[in-house]
Amino acid sequence: MLDATTQQVFSQDLPDQQPFCRIQKIEVTPVAFADPPLLNSVGVHEPYALRAIIVVHTDSGHYGLGETYGDEVHVNRLRRAAEELINADPFNLNVISRLVSASLRQDDGQGGHGTGGMVTTTSLDDRVLSAFNVACLDIQGKILGLPVSTLLGGAVREHVDFSGYLFYKWAAHPGQEPDKWGPAEDPAGIVAQARIMVNDYGFRALKLKGGVFPPDQEAAAIEALHKEFPDIPLRLDPNGVWSVPTAINVGHRLESSLEYLEDPCLSIADNAAVRAEISLPIATNMCVVSFADLPPAMDAKAIDIVLSDHHFWGGLSRSKLLSGFAETFGLRLSMHSNSHLGISFAAMIHLAAATENIDYACDTHWPWKRQEDDVIVPGVLSIQEGRVKVPTAPGLGIELDPQALERMHQQYLDSGLRQRNDTGYMQSIDPSYELKSPRW
Amino acid sequence: MLDATTQQVFSQDLPDQQPFCRIQKIEVTPVAFADPPLLNSVGVHEPYALRAIIVVHTDSGHYGLGETYGDEVHVNRLRRAAEELINADPFNLNVISRLVSASLRQDDGQGGHGTGGMVTTTSLDDRVLSAFNVACLDIQGKILGLPVSTLLGGAVREHVDFSGYLFYKWAAHPGQEPDKWGPAEDPAGIVAQARIMVNDYGFRALKLKGGVFPPDQEAAAIEALHKEFPDIPLRLDPNGVWSVPTAINVGHRLESSLEYLEDPCLSIADNAAVRAEISLPIATNMCVVSFADLPPAMDAKAIDIVLSDHHFWGGLSRSKLLSGFAETFGLRLSMHSNSHLGISFAAMIHLAAATENIDYACDTHWPWKRQEDDVIVPGVLSIQEGRVKVPTAPGLGIELDPQALERMHQQYLDSGLRQRNDTGYMQSIDPSYELKSPRW
Ligand SMILES: [Mg+2]
Ligand SMILES: [Mg+2]
Repeated sequence: MLDATTQQVFSQDLPDQQPFCRIQKIEVTPVAFADPPLLNSVGVHEPYALRAIIVVHTDSGHYGLGETYGDEVHVNRLRRAAEELINADPFNLNVISRLVSASLRQDDGQGGHGTGGMVTTTSLDDRVLSAFNVACLDIQGKILGLPVSTLLGGAVREHVDFSGYLFYKWAAHPGQEPDKWGPAEDPAGIVAQARIMVNDYGFRALKLKGGVFPPDQEAAAIEALHKEFPDIPLRLDPNGVWSVPTAINVGHRLESSLEYLEDPCLSIADNAAVRAEISLPIATNMCVVSFADLPPAMDAKAIDIVLSDHHFWGGLSRSKLLSGFAETFGLRLSMHSNSHLGISFAAMIHLAAATENIDYACDTHWPWKRQEDDVIVPGVLSIQEGRVKVPTAPGLGIELDPQALERMHQQYLDSGLRQRNDTGYMQSIDPSYELKSPRW
Repeated sequence: MLDATTQQVFSQDLPDQQPFCRIQKIEVTPVAFADPPLLNSVGVHEPYALRAIIVVHTDSGHYGLGETYGDEVHVNRLRRAAEELINADPFNLNVISRLVSASLRQDDGQGGHGTGGMVTTTSLDDRVLSAFNVACLDIQGKILGLPVSTLLGGAVREHVDFSGYLFYKWAAHPGQEPDKWGPAEDPAGIVAQARIMVNDYGFRALKLKGGVFPPDQEAAAIEALHKEFPDIPLRLDPNGVWSVPTAINVGHRLESSLEYLEDPCLSIADNAAVRAEISLPIATNMCVVSFADLPPAMDAKAIDIVLSDHHFWGGLSRSKLLSGFAETFGLRLSMHSNSHLGISFAAMIHLAAATENIDYACDTHWPWKRQEDDVIVPGVLSIQEGRVKVPTAPGLGIELDPQALERMHQQYLDSGLRQRNDTGYMQSIDPSYELKSPRW
């Protein structure tokens, strides 16, 4: 049954395992990068988007990278968590999670959501844990010689599909030169923008960020896109600012042109009421944003698709848990994006590569970022034919550019911004602008 | 912000990752080990329990171990799956899972459950996948120098608590010498058995396998145990053979003496009806045995505790998913056991070590096995003070003993048994024995 060669293998010595390394130092660096005037349901993107970059150093001379929100309250939490993690074993993700939670025990949980007020119910612990989980996986991968996708269960695809993320926008921030995209404040502008997205990046799915103009105009934009790109699946995301009747009306109108409708309303109950009346899948990254939201959302049959986002679902390990949950409950899975740099992009790509049930092209803000604005050595991540090749080098497969990090940190210092505030920026330009929910 | 030493680290080269190894050969070996005449709701354990041992060999000269049910139908499925896995990368667990499922595509799913008819609704794919998932993790750990607990997210405890598993039993199999445990057919016999369990192994939790005698006698046994061991939490598991009214009656009676009641009835609906009436947590390893069972069980509020079992929940990776599910839904987590050898024991220990929310001492049949009946080199796994030290050597931390495997395989050949059949064995001794559900 067992031949001689085979039997030799059984004599291997199995020495007791010692930790490969300990966390020696963690740098938490807020950075800013230029962002176009992209319009949304709460205002307009400011001239700079903020992120925090986490560099975790080990006593073995390795480092791991994480990226998360740059709001000052969040950065302070990251720094407190980082103190707890000194001497921890980056291979023990469960203990890393415990330590992060311990650092938050006295925290009142106010602020620091990083989404400009759009999503305020994500889990405090998961939101702070995320970047450390990513950085530890990056370290593990580098030490073991394995890409993060393998640590997450193994890549099931060589490329990850992304969608082209269309935004209503102004031609330029007030007082600045117009950017290459030009204005997009009506259906024709959106179609023109989509042409650039499709031509330059080859996207085979398109998403329109709505909630900006009256629903009729946004529906007209979807219909114009559908006419121009009949073979490209389309999504519309008004970020929850429609009433139930409005959402049902617009939903009916777009049943034949949309792939899915994202967060037509804000609450689980309202989206469930909409879902009961329209024949369109409903997706969310607003009413189901933490594990605590899953049971009530399942009870209410509110959603068909959950947009995962490792930044608020506790990092890559817990995002895999979300994907298993989606499989169990027959939810489909897509991926949400905030404005981000290359570390987050790499993490998103590894996660999607190792997730069997990613059912849709993932969202990304990547094309809206200037190429030179990043903290990683360029060249690894690029969108071609609407997809990105999954890095196969160890860890995240990217390298930090320390000079670029310095430059982006200086940009943060110079920007004067300390938290994302799309509403305040809009009101500084249009004093009559008011937050309203639902707006229509 | 970044000092000079730090910056040196960033120049590391990140070479493209190649698979460390490929699966070269898989041996699937059915084995048998002596088992006492333990009574349960469907009959009595036969003189030998069957298992299948999986040895996965890589082209790098490493091997990984898995253990699962030994029913012939199951063994044939394992062999078909093993053929699919040749040349696969044992580091890509997602692809391993895909390949196992592919091997089952033409399978009618009949038989091979390995539980003697007690649980027949586990997932075919997960049941066949399990041992391969364990073996691949064992290989990964050996190659990387990491214990399996680390690959599962990291150990959060150095020891895993187990419960002493009490059985009604005969003094001996017909025609054999009495075993060291003696008979246990009434409360006094169970208390005597419990004394040995507690004295010899230091268990600090006890479980009684019920469903054998009329519920009043089994309740009296629990009460006698509670009197003898007032500080030891107790569980009773009649394996679903009670009617709802019986379960409510016995449940009420034992509210002050049980830690939890396991599968009083067979179905989700019946257990939910019982749970609504009694103040005892209800645990299950019979009505929630696959991911497909979770949504209806949550809807019905049938259970408080799910007993994980990596043998039918798809292996260790998917058992981690179950633990995340339990956390999300506020279920508590314990662990189920069938008669098993050391490979399964090691896998259970690594899983429990890396699972934050294991809320109870885990079940194990370990004390019922003769020490010399195993396929691993002895010495690593031992129960002291009711717990087992988590192995820290790479992989599962155990070694195959190829001669022992040969011996146990010969025992399988000699036993003549080809599938577990507690009912048939009982009927061969007592021709009047009938299966009944509910029995009381
Ligand atoms: Mg959205
Ligand atoms: Mg049970």
